[in-house]
Amino acid sequence: MTYKIAVLAGDGIGPEIVEQAKKVCNAITKKFGHKFEYTEALVGATAIDQVGDPYPAETHELCMNSDAVLFGAIGHPKFDNDPSAKVRPEQGLLKMRKTLGLYANLRPVNTFKSLIHKSPLKTELVDGADFMCIRELTGGIYFGRPQGRSEDGQTAYDSCVYTAEEIERIIRLGFEYAGKRRKKLTIVDKANVLATSRLWREIGQKVAPDYPDIEVEYMFVDNAAMQIITWPKRFDVMVTENMFGDILTDEASVISGSMGMLPSASIGVHTSVFEPIHGSYPQAAGKNIANPCATVLSAAMMFEYAFGMMKEGALIREAVDQSLEAGVVTEDIADGKKAYSTSEVGDWLAEYIE
Amino acid sequence: MTYKIAVLAGDGIGPEIVEQAKKVCNAITKKFGHKFEYTEALVGATAIDQVGDPYPAETHELCMNSDAVLFGAIGHPKFDNDPSAKVRPEQGLLKMRKTLGLYANLRPVNTFKSLIHKSPLKTELVDGADFMCIRELTGGIYFGRPQGRSEDGQTAYDSCVYTAEEIERIIRLGFEYAGKRRKKLTIVDKANVLATSRLWREIGQKVAPDYPDIEVEYMFVDNAAMQIITWPKRFDVMVTENMFGDILTDEASVISGSMGMLPSASIGVHTSVFEPIHGSYPQAAGKNIANPCATVLSAAMMFEYAFGMMKEGALIREAVDQSLEAGVVTEDIADGKKAYSTSEVGDWLAEYIE
Ligand SMILES: CC(C)[C@H](C(=O)O)[C@@H](O)C(=O)O
Ligand SMILES: CC(C)[C@H](C(=O)O)[C@@H](O)C(=O)O
Repeated sequence: MTYKIAVLAGDGIGPEIVEQAKKVCNAITKKFGHKFEYTEALVGATAIDQVGDPYPAETHELCMNSDAVLFGAIGHPKFDNDPSAKVRPEQGLLKMRKTLGLYANLRPVNTFKSLIHKSPLKTELVDGADFMCIRELTGGIYFGRPQGRSEDGQTAYDSCVYTAEEIERIIRLGFEYAGKRRKKLTIVDKANVLATSRLWREIGQKVAPDYPDIEVEYMFVDNAAMQIITWPKRFDVMVTENMFGDILTDEASVISGSMGMLPSASIGVHTSVFEPIHGSYPQAAGKNIANPCATVLSAAMMFEYAFGMMKEGALIREAVDQSLEAGVVTEDIADGKKAYSTSEVGDWLAEYIE
Repeated sequence: MTYKIAVLAGDGIGPEIVEQAKKVCNAITKKFGHKFEYTEALVGATAIDQVGDPYPAETHELCMNSDAVLFGAIGHPKFDNDPSAKVRPEQGLLKMRKTLGLYANLRPVNTFKSLIHKSPLKTELVDGADFMCIRELTGGIYFGRPQGRSEDGQTAYDSCVYTAEEIERIIRLGFEYAGKRRKKLTIVDKANVLATSRLWREIGQKVAPDYPDIEVEYMFVDNAAMQIITWPKRFDVMVTENMFGDILTDEASVISGSMGMLPSASIGVHTSVFEPIHGSYPQAAGKNIANPCATVLSAAMMFEYAFGMMKEGALIREAVDQSLEAGVVTEDIADGKKAYSTSEVGDWLAEYIE
């Protein structure tokens, strides 16, 4: 069987980092005898520039027919100060999430021994922190309608909408991942204020008896925003709605101190997307200095989550750990020591694997 | 002139800590020759227990006729695991905010030299951090309608609604406070996704020219959640909508490492409310161990914001600083050294002032 991988490199450093992830995937497929077929497609600002659409129909077609999507990054400074521009890269992202049914965004939060000193938090608080944030990605206020302005333009409104089905799907996923980990699930909501959150909590309480070995706790989002910083080790799996997840996952991402190392997976109905959590970093584009590890580790998640190839994923992780040990790192984490280029790190990882 | 102060002590440790703030206020009025008249009223779980309403009409009447409200804390564990209970303490809080028109919640974030080691963040990041969070408190998804469930109960919805007027009022307040401080305003929104946030940004851009000496920046809420931890010193005044403010102010509150020291003010159309940011801490209720400083510093904000009495506010702050220096502190910040009781700290502060 040949696995079909859609490659959506996107903007800024996207192409360079995705290139390294492909090198690493090739090393893995060679070693383990898998067959991968890559097809590239446009997304983001690049797609707007070339065809006027941040998520063109051909790109969508390709993703629908792929076993997984390897995604780089999108965004360009020219859109930054004009959030009401007619066509924007983010719209492509949201359309992709919705049309591919990418309902669950998974973000592991963990630390790397050799980088822990870069955390803004005190070492004893973060050393050993290891949790998984699961963010609902296709519902809530991101997609709820009506959204817009009153006729006189003086009132604006958004709608947060969730169906029981959407909530149950993601909460069950949370329980399942917790079952594979330390068996603790934290469901984050604002049930003391929001009707949608009260439905979240109800459904949590309804499905919990199906997972008797999982300890489940409910936490208000404001409290979660504090606990993530004051006691990150208390979490195992955290699940929450789209908007809260946007805020909390970004908050949680800084505790490791090395944004350039953090991968993500968006699990979908039609296919799944694997991408680094960092942005397109336009200042670094084309300079061969960006850290490819977040994308490489996203590829590791692809092996595990899309193909169930656990050994392959583990080997990629091992390679990344070893590159840190060996000091083969890009300038963002080189700490004044010798910095390697993006492609040198990619080559080293591929060679380690082979 | 006699200033009328409504005293809403509330639940848990509320009565004990408010008592100390009154002592301190009395010391101030004695020293400066002001006249204060205190009237107590019910709020929170206590009010539910006694009259079945967390914010009774008499309490509201009293607040409407008061120059300021000194508020303790509300909440009781018996409501914690049942967010859909018919009558809840938080409903009283939300009703109070709405009916008193408490549109702006101000939370200073700063550090205390002698407590900085208690911060979860590294000292060099937080030492010198000093900013003001302004949260819109009577609009957005907290109060937007429709809110509820579809007939079959399978869909839940909330509405986030903002009028141009509500937004302009709070953004102008942000510019004005920035003008009295380091002249930098950060407006936090999610304008790349939400219609309400786009109106926020539009209004920011509309009123900014009226404050030519203020540097204004717009920041997405997910980015703000990261910057608060990675670089708190970059902020001077931050203004944001209700739900984002709930999350970000609680996040920001942990950077000082001493929740028991943090005051707040809610500026209103009819009157203003001054309260500690911490909760009712039921485990400590009646034990005379709770830290009264957050409430005492809320009283300092009352002198400054409600009565324009800056010297009086400054003297309260000085007293609190000196109590820290002198080690006259409650057990939460005593670090294993001798801990004083709630009332001893209150007495010490009042004596210092006199
Ligand atoms: C770009 C933006 C629309 C997006 C989001 O809010 O989901 C981003 O912040 C993210 O988290 O992937
Ligand atoms: C109790 C709750 C309704 C309240 C809020 O969300 O506003 C609290 O978290 C706060 O920040 O004062």
